[in-house]
Amino acid sequence: MPSDVDEEIMCATCRALCSHGYAGLTMQAIADEYSKSKAALHYHFDSKRDLLVAFQEFLGDRFLERVREADAVAGDDPADRLSAVLDAALSPPESDDLEDLQTALLELKAQAPYEERYREQSEAFNDAVVDLLSEILAAGVESSDFQSDIDPRDTAEFLLTVLEGSQVRNVAVGQRPERTRDLLASHLERQVYAQSGSPEDSPEGGR
Amino acid sequence: MPSDVDEEIMCATCRALCSHGYAGLTMQAIADEYSKSKAALHYHFDSKRDLLVAFQEFLGDRFLERVREADAVAGDDPADRLSAVLDAALSPPESDDLEDLQTALLELKAQAPYEERYREQSEAFNDAVVDLLSEILAAGVESSDFQSDIDPRDTAEFLLTVLEGSQVRNVAVGQRPERTRDLLASHLERQVYAQSGSPEDSPEGGR
Repeated sequence: MPSDVDEEIMCATCRALCSHGYAGLTMQAIADEYSKSKAALHYHFDSKRDLLVAFQEFLGDRFLERVREADAVAGDDPADRLSAVLDAALSPPESDDLEDLQTALLELKAQAPYEERYREQSEAFNDAVVDLLSEILAAGVESSDFQSDIDPRDTAEFLLTVLEGSQVRNVAVGQRPERTRDLLASHLERQVYAQSGSPEDSPEGGR
Repeated sequence: MPSDVDEEIMCATCRALCSHGYAGLTMQAIADEYSKSKAALHYHFDSKRDLLVAFQEFLGDRFLERVREADAVAGDDPADRLSAVLDAALSPPESDDLEDLQTALLELKAQAPYEERYREQSEAFNDAVVDLLSEILAAGVESSDFQSDIDPRDTAEFLLTVLEGSQVRNVAVGQRPERTRDLLASHLERQVYAQSGSPEDSPEGGR
C-alpha cells in the first residue's frame, strides 16, 4: 500500500501521463507535476520504469478497491452484486483527465511483452478480477439465482475479456463504457441469470 | 490497395515493429529491414507516422480479407458463417513474429487519441467488422437459425468487444485467442443460435 509520499507521486505520474502519453513521458515531466524535485523523485524510484510499475499497481489497486466496495454495498443477492461490480467497472470516467488515463493504461498493458514486471502486474490484476467475479458467480449458482450449468471461472474470464475490450474500444474509437454495460445486460439476462419465465417477464437484474 | 513496392515496405515495417516495438521504431530500423535505402523509404512516405497509418490500414485490410474469405468458404448457413469468421478472427498466430505483431497493433490502437488518422483507421476497421457480423446475424435471424429477438448490430458490437478484449489479454497476460474462441462458443450456443430443445441436445454449431 502506498504511503502519503507515494500517493503524491502517483498523482503526479497520473497527471504527467495524461498530458504527455506513455511515449512522451520523462522523469522531468513527472517531477514538474510533483511538488518536489526530480532528485526527490529519484530518491523514491530508481527509474521511470520502476515508477511506472508502481503506478500500474496503484491503478490496479484503485480499480479493485472500487469494484470491491461496490460489491460490499450491493448486499448479498448475487445478481445485485454482479450488477454493481460491472457498473463500477464500466462507469464513465469522472473527468476528461481520467479518460486520458484509459489511454495511458492501455499503453502500459501493451508494454507487458517488453517488461516482465508489467506482465506480472497484469497477471495479478487479471487473477484478482477473475477471482472476485468467479466468487459472485459461484454464489449465484449455489443460490439458484444463476443458471446451474454455468462455469463460474469460464464466465468470469469471459466477462473480463469484455471489460478489456471495452477499454480498447473506448480508447481506439471513442466507444463509451456505458455502451458496453448495456450490451452486457442482455448477455447476463440470457446467459447468467436463472430463467424465471420469458425474458420479457423477468425483472431487470441491473439498476 | 498497396502496390508491390508498398507491400515490400509493409513487410519491412512489420519486421521492424516486431523487433523494436512501437516506442523503439525509427525510419532507419524500417530501412534496415527494407531492401532499399532510407531515402527510398522517404520517397514513398513523408514520415514514420504516415508509414504507420498506411501500415495500420494494411493490417486491417489483411484481417478483413482473411475473415471475408473464411465467410465465403463457409457457404450459406449463417451458423457456419459466423463460426468460420470467429475462427478466422481468433486463430492462433502462425509464428512468434505474428504474435509480436499483436503487441505492435495494440500499441498503434492506443495511439488513436494522439493521432487523428489512427482514430479514423480504427473507426473504419470497427465499422467494417460490425457490418460483416451484423449481416451474418441478420441473415441468421431471417432464416430462423438464430434467435428471433437478437439485435444484429448490438450483438455484432458485443462480439467485436470480445475480439478486442482477446487481443489485450493475449498481449498483457499471454491468454491465447483459442481460449476466447472456446469461451465464445458457449455464448453463441445460448445467446445466438436458435434453441432447438435443451442445450445438451442441440447440434454443435461450431466446428
